[in-house]
Amino acid sequence: MKAAVIGTSGYTGLILLRILYGHPEVKHIIPVSSSKAGNSITAVDPGLSNEILKKMSLTDGKCITIKDLETYKPDVVFAALPHLKSAELLAEFLTKTVVIDLSADFRIQDSKLFETAYGCKPPREDLLDKSIYGLCEWYGDRISGYDIIANPGCYPTSVLLPLLPLAKEGLIAGAVIVNSISGISGAGKKLNENLLYCERTENAGAYAPGRTHRHVSEMEGELQKAEQSINLYFTPHLAPLKAGIASTIIVEPDSNVDDNTINSIYNKYYEDSCFINITGNNIPQTMNVRGSNRCDIGWHIEGKKLMIFSCIDNLIKGASGQAVQNMNIRFGIKEETGLSFFGEA
Amino acid sequence: MKAAVIGTSGYTGLILLRILYGHPEVKHIIPVSSSKAGNSITAVDPGLSNEILKKMSLTDGKCITIKDLETYKPDVVFAALPHLKSAELLAEFLTKTVVIDLSADFRIQDSKLFETAYGCKPPREDLLDKSIYGLCEWYGDRISGYDIIANPGCYPTSVLLPLLPLAKEGLIAGAVIVNSISGISGAGKKLNENLLYCERTENAGAYAPGRTHRHVSEMEGELQKAEQSINLYFTPHLAPLKAGIASTIIVEPDSNVDDNTINSIYNKYYEDSCFINITGNNIPQTMNVRGSNRCDIGWHIEGKKLMIFSCIDNLIKGASGQAVQNMNIRFGIKEETGLSFFGEA
Amino acid sequence: MKAAVIGTSGYTGLILLRILYGHPEVKHIIPVSSSKAGNSITAVDPGLSNEILKKMSLTDGKCITIKDLETYKPDVVFAALPHLKSAELLAEFLTKTVVIDLSADFRIQDSKLFETAYGCKPPREDLLDKSIYGLCEWYGDRISGYDIIANPGCYPTSVLLPLLPLAKEGLIAGAVIVNSISGISGAGKKLNENLLYCERTENAGAYAPGRTHRHVSEMEGELQKAEQSINLYFTPHLAPLKAGIASTIIVEPDSNVDDNTINSIYNKYYEDSCFINITGNNIPQTMNVRGSNRCDIGWHIEGKKLMIFSCIDNLIKGASGQAVQNMNIRFGIKEETGLSFFGEA
Amino acid sequence: MKAAVIGTSGYTGLILLRILYGHPEVKHIIPVSSSKAGNSITAVDPGLSNEILKKMSLTDGKCITIKDLETYKPDVVFAALPHLKSAELLAEFLTKTVVIDLSADFRIQDSKLFETAYGCKPPREDLLDKSIYGLCEWYGDRISGYDIIANPGCYPTSVLLPLLPLAKEGLIAGAVIVNSISGISGAGKKLNENLLYCERTENAGAYAPGRTHRHVSEMEGELQKAEQSINLYFTPHLAPLKAGIASTIIVEPDSNVDDNTINSIYNKYYEDSCFINITGNNIPQTMNVRGSNRCDIGWHIEGKKLMIFSCIDNLIKGASGQAVQNMNIRFGIKEETGLSFFGEA
Repeated sequence: MKAAVIGTSGYTGLILLRILYGHPEVKHIIPVSSSKAGNSITAVDPGLSNEILKKMSLTDGKCITIKDLETYKPDVVFAALPHLKSAELLAEFLTKTVVIDLSADFRIQDSKLFETAYGCKPPREDLLDKSIYGLCEWYGDRISGYDIIANPGCYPTSVLLPLLPLAKEGLIAGAVIVNSISGISGAGKKLNENLLYCERTENAGAYAPGRTHRHVSEMEGELQKAEQSINLYFTPHLAPLKAGIASTIIVEPDSNVDDNTINSIYNKYYEDSCFINITGNNIPQTMNVRGSNRCDIGWHIEGKKLMIFSCIDNLIKGASGQAVQNMNIRFGIKEETGLSFFGEA
Repeated sequence: MKAAVIGTSGYTGLILLRILYGHPEVKHIIPVSSSKAGNSITAVDPGLSNEILKKMSLTDGKCITIKDLETYKPDVVFAALPHLKSAELLAEFLTKTVVIDLSADFRIQDSKLFETAYGCKPPREDLLDKSIYGLCEWYGDRISGYDIIANPGCYPTSVLLPLLPLAKEGLIAGAVIVNSISGISGAGKKLNENLLYCERTENAGAYAPGRTHRHVSEMEGELQKAEQSINLYFTPHLAPLKAGIASTIIVEPDSNVDDNTINSIYNKYYEDSCFINITGNNIPQTMNVRGSNRCDIGWHIEGKKLMIFSCIDNLIKGASGQAVQNMNIRFGIKEETGLSFFGEA
Repeated sequence: MKAAVIGTSGYTGLILLRILYGHPEVKHIIPVSSSKAGNSITAVDPGLSNEILKKMSLTDGKCITIKDLETYKPDVVFAALPHLKSAELLAEFLTKTVVIDLSADFRIQDSKLFETAYGCKPPREDLLDKSIYGLCEWYGDRISGYDIIANPGCYPTSVLLPLLPLAKEGLIAGAVIVNSISGISGAGKKLNENLLYCERTENAGAYAPGRTHRHVSEMEGELQKAEQSINLYFTPHLAPLKAGIASTIIVEPDSNVDDNTINSIYNKYYEDSCFINITGNNIPQTMNVRGSNRCDIGWHIEGKKLMIFSCIDNLIKGASGQAVQNMNIRFGIKEETGLSFFGEA
Repeated sequence: MKAAVIGTSGYTGLILLRILYGHPEVKHIIPVSSSKAGNSITAVDPGLSNEILKKMSLTDGKCITIKDLETYKPDVVFAALPHLKSAELLAEFLTKTVVIDLSADFRIQDSKLFETAYGCKPPREDLLDKSIYGLCEWYGDRISGYDIIANPGCYPTSVLLPLLPLAKEGLIAGAVIVNSISGISGAGKKLNENLLYCERTENAGAYAPGRTHRHVSEMEGELQKAEQSINLYFTPHLAPLKAGIASTIIVEPDSNVDDNTINSIYNKYYEDSCFINITGNNIPQTMNVRGSNRCDIGWHIEGKKLMIFSCIDNLIKGASGQAVQNMNIRFGIKEETGLSFFGEA
């Protein structure tokens, strides 16, 4: 297989290169970057080394432009491009090559919800029915039928994986309160004063509460599909870590539940999901999943409330790892190929 | 004034020494520590320097034992001792000297609530009516009449300051959901594997959810006094910072509220409180209050929910700073004396 | 006194505001910033609060432009402006008002050395003899005679304070090897990819070794004045902390030395220096001096080598704190006024 | 192959489990831990998941004691045990099974040097000639002939790899000055107040300078073998990162050298070493090698001095990664098998 990665100057693009290097089915990697075109990938990222060139013979280890990509006939295109620009830049590949889009352009199929979040219609409304939301554990059996796979957002991945089974079972009565803590890499490698080391170290706090964060629409869209209309109150927080999301989800079940109920539901939906790690009453921490494609889910029941805790690595399961998982599913490769099960010691 | 600090080997004790050194009304500081008795305070804490000795002539800069403290006749005793041991160790000072107790021993006046949290009756139930909960902005006018001041817990300070005005106004309808992120110093300077640098850096997550954290009873006790029985669902989280608490509080008001309503309520209660900083729709961050005695409070209204955000420095407003503020009030000194208004740049 | 701070959008400027607020002799602070002119200082820095306005009545808490500053007739002007622009922007104040310049424009009196470092002649060569290098502990007795005070660089402060006494005593035989670790704030609040949180957390390494760092000329200039020509090999390193410099200096003394020799020398020069903390064979750490105006100095003798260890807070003793210390000396105020002696607990 | 890991409660042991899980030639992993015997490995380390059990069928995923290990007949034993206890605890395996010892017990073949560092004779002086110092790139061709492989220390690895080629070429004239910055995991997972998060975050400084650090003897021993007696002045520093060592080495070459000379020397020795990454005048940073088995080496020549910069991940190339590399070499497996080439993006 030949895999192209568009956007190799950001964190998700550079991590995709690493995962694809270790992937036994990928023989060629084509690095694409408008800002770094012509540069050797090892100059762009000194974390790589000449070893990466073993899979980059096609471009001699150099980044190429999107315009030049077509001639390489990639089997799969991973696009780590900005929202609202991705679909346009990918135009010549859409429906012709398998595209795994890490932007939001195809994530929300309900046009109004998209507009609420992004202020305009989905850029390629005409192709929405040819795309699928690539939440692997949820749509795994259908993903292989699509050539446009919208890789989920990081917060939605951490929230939907624990929440969808409960929604599907009709268990959720009132509003759902979600508080997430994210590592700083969630914002990408942007030159923003707010992302400087000295502004973020030893600093924690909420930002963009409620609907002011665009991931709310993405989550609501998926919850609606699970046949429950759910009011979601979401507050993201930044804390001084590079990668990791810890989400705390407070649900009021429609009836009394106990640990067995919850355990059974998660087993029902995730028994065969190798990357879902049910931790029961042990509360997961982001370090446990750092570097892995896992989502750890635990809970605590108190009075009428069910408190659910989930952790992912926002750069792996919340981005590049899930993207490769989507590739695996789409191409009939064993789902876990090339992906890590283990977090940090 | 002569001020004694018991427990000068921990963070709150050592910070108390710093604040008292800069306090114009305190002429003598007496450092007390059973584990460091006989040691020079500058050997205990190399962050100090010989300058501190200018206010430590009474003991020649050396730590003494509690047993020896009586002979120095301190005007005020700050006690940074473990819960359930503090009241006992302070026995000979209680009701004789002004004691500002940073432990939980006098924080909860309802015996049952105390027992729920700490597994036993309050150690000095007989003295509860001679003690006051030292939440300065709330009980400021009464604190001067008491000789036992229970310095509030760090999480309760960050939650009660924004919540009590709403409770007092009868505004809170349903359950209150509180998610707090705390710096690691909240756990003190304990030799616990979970507190090692390598276990906490680049790691975030919830712990001790709901009633499994003892601060819940402390918060409920105070909310009850504000004449509303409120169900509180609390989840504390650790993130990789030394100091700071960011609390996100989700409330369902009993009627429609707007920004003006909330602003008016906070103004009504805190207009004259120099350490309460109302930030409106700007969301506070812990860096803004680090090192200061401030509590910053902001909010966001969405649909039926009011999302409140508060930040304090857990070691200052959540411990040593508030303790000195209590001393100031108790002794008729201007409330802000010796305390800082500004967080980090 | 009326003190103006030019450059209130950077870390050193914002910290100067904090120190000057707490300074008993400063009645008025005038915040100056071209990029923030017209904005309220509390909007520029949410770490401040309305309390700062008590000393900012002259401008109603708003930042003004340099052009408008003259009408306020400040007694002292602190300038936190970029190198090679500072002298020019300050033109109308130089020799008329006391200027404490935190840039490098007046730091090196030897034109050739300046050119080696900055690629051009000193911008105001004509005024070099009217300026003094404001290393307080070294030139303290002469500073009061100058109206242009060049506040030393952060690395030079951490290196010269321990090194100059040895140079002055003619003790240094061969080359001096200096390795410094600096916090990230040393680079200022610049939008540079290399300064993003995700690029610096969990990352350490050298940069700009030897003469490629411009502080080398500043250090050599001062060492020459101490009557020894010394070859200095300097390597700065970045580590993931906001503030603090730890310098390790390896010297080959010209004769055998022991701990007493070194101790005597430091006592001879620094006995009356309240901010120099000689720690002997205890090795200082940056946390010990964080937030203070101190320089801690320790050492270890091994074979023919003397290893010296010094720590400062680069933003305080290495910038804003030393600047206020210079103001104190210049205006005959007690040297330590408004400055902190204690680092972190 | 059956691989046993003794000491699975520390960082190096737990990382060994991860590497061995991904190693295609290792079919069975046997976790050994006296303190955790009987416990499931996933309870010991929640960063692992049930996936690890696929290679732990022999013990059902449970830790066993050393005493029980013999019955499993491991092909290779990795020992992450304390210095001066390791050789004794391993007694029944030494010379019978291939042992890769991560302690210092077999690292120094010169008894006097060992005694200087560890205060006693090497615990198994009788076996020293049956052991080899497992610095893979240096002794690679001989390692396959030994059954006791002493895995090098982390600082020595980062210093010897760049220094030995220069020593071997007889290039080093005077004393060598080494300053290293290490992540906190270098000290292991010990309950030491000095290793608490709150003591290490935002804190940097030297410790154990010169001969007070035991790794100096290990380095000198190897430098002597390279036929040059070299005076080494070593200062280790701690900075707030979990993993990574950046070493800055100042050498005075015996004759003029230029970039080509140095480049040629490194190419001569390391051309075929896939884990040595020569970066020339680009200075490596620890992030570039984090998680990889690489050693990056760069330099800067100034006047008479050669400044060399090297970076490794202390837990990988400085411990567990090099241990597996030693296993690969010893068993005739391709050297890089199971090891990572890439650091962090």
